[in-house]
Amino acid sequence: MEPEDVIQHTSSEFARFLKNVRSHTLEMGGLAEQHVSSAVQAFLDGNQKLAKKIAREDFKINALEVKIDEECSEFLALQHPVAMDLRTVIAVIKATTDLERVGDEAEKIARMTMQLDYQAVRKRHLRAVKHIARHVLDMLRKSLDSFARLDPEQALEVLKADAEVDQEYEAAIRQMITFMMEDPHDIRLVLEILWCAKALERIGDHAANICEHVLYQVLGKDLRHISIEQVEKELAEAQI
Amino acid sequence: MEPEDVIQHTSSEFARFLKNVRSHTLEMGGLAEQHVSSAVQAFLDGNQKLAKKIAREDFKINALEVKIDEECSEFLALQHPVAMDLRTVIAVIKATTDLERVGDEAEKIARMTMQLDYQAVRKRHLRAVKHIARHVLDMLRKSLDSFARLDPEQALEVLKADAEVDQEYEAAIRQMITFMMEDPHDIRLVLEILWCAKALERIGDHAANICEHVLYQVLGKDLRHISIEQVEKELAEAQI
Repeated sequence: MEPEDVIQHTSSEFARFLKNVRSHTLEMGGLAEQHVSSAVQAFLDGNQKLAKKIAREDFKINALEVKIDEECSEFLALQHPVAMDLRTVIAVIKATTDLERVGDEAEKIARMTMQLDYQAVRKRHLRAVKHIARHVLDMLRKSLDSFARLDPEQALEVLKADAEVDQEYEAAIRQMITFMMEDPHDIRLVLEILWCAKALERIGDHAANICEHVLYQVLGKDLRHISIEQVEKELAEAQI
Repeated sequence: MEPEDVIQHTSSEFARFLKNVRSHTLEMGGLAEQHVSSAVQAFLDGNQKLAKKIAREDFKINALEVKIDEECSEFLALQHPVAMDLRTVIAVIKATTDLERVGDEAEKIARMTMQLDYQAVRKRHLRAVKHIARHVLDMLRKSLDSFARLDPEQALEVLKADAEVDQEYEAAIRQMITFMMEDPHDIRLVLEILWCAKALERIGDHAANICEHVLYQVLGKDLRHISIEQVEKELAEAQI
């Protein structure tokens, strides 16, 4: 389904406005994705300069959230959208909240980089973070893509991937506990790395939330809090 | 400021609707607060029966979120609110997202209770959780109260308390690291308790978010992402 289909029943003014807001949301999403990617790179490489840059620039994502929320408020007040258009505006408001928190998590990872004792870090400590990061970044990219194209199938894919990331995260915790037990002197260090894994797991949750907003937009039903199997059934029945 | 002042410029139908939605939001908030309080009690006492009840009943909070979001959508579509009324609806949509996640964190704490090895738990392990929980529950209660009465002063108080909780949480982490280093056999156990502290810290964040929505409603300005001192200045200038 293309965004054009979505807005065909609105006036051209509505269409322009929605296009604008959606494009700003995707700009915000792109920036959040870039921050996560850079923060993870900084964390894995111990790149302090990059970490400081990300920590310093979170305000850019925050500023976009405020701007988009204001655009949505203005749109709601002046244009009184209904049906799909209204759902889009609500989905945008909810998605920006998630994206802002993705930015917060990236900032946290950047700040962890600035505290980690890289003299003591071993390659094996970082393996799980590297793995989860790759998976979560893929989820985030796909969630933004599904938001841009209003693609419920891709949204479902991300929801399934979230369950996998949760499992990987659980496995990472078990591994980190082993590291800590093997060498109690490393406890503080390993815990810092575990916080990074936790921040990534949260980012995966936010990507999944964004996909739930996509499903809400497309199906007009609130599909949060039901199982993936039920969502699949709803999608099949809607014949999308 | 009383809710009546807020809705004085709306028709009686608007007023009724807003009153309804606000009361459902407070019902959801009360339930979320009750879940946090019971989950913490179950965690501290090792009360498995209570933990299972909370884990099983999170769906009630989720159902309220879906219901309120639907009411808001309908209100936006049919009544085209502007100004303060519109801001109220947007604040409600954002607050329900936070409350739903408060419920999720309570559920997590309940599930942790079901996994914790209470044979190995010592009183000193739980002291920090007890302390943070008391503080966070107070924040949550005050955030709901400030939402109900649209009280910006109380909202500010909660924002200040959030910074204190963050410090308490940092202190708890340091203490837990000491426990783990003292007895590496306790690492898994202490980590579980640390997760509980983390869940509580998150609940504090959500309470703070709700207060930011209150400030947005009252001042009509987005005051997220600025310092508490700036918020105080804005409030003084608005002479509220």
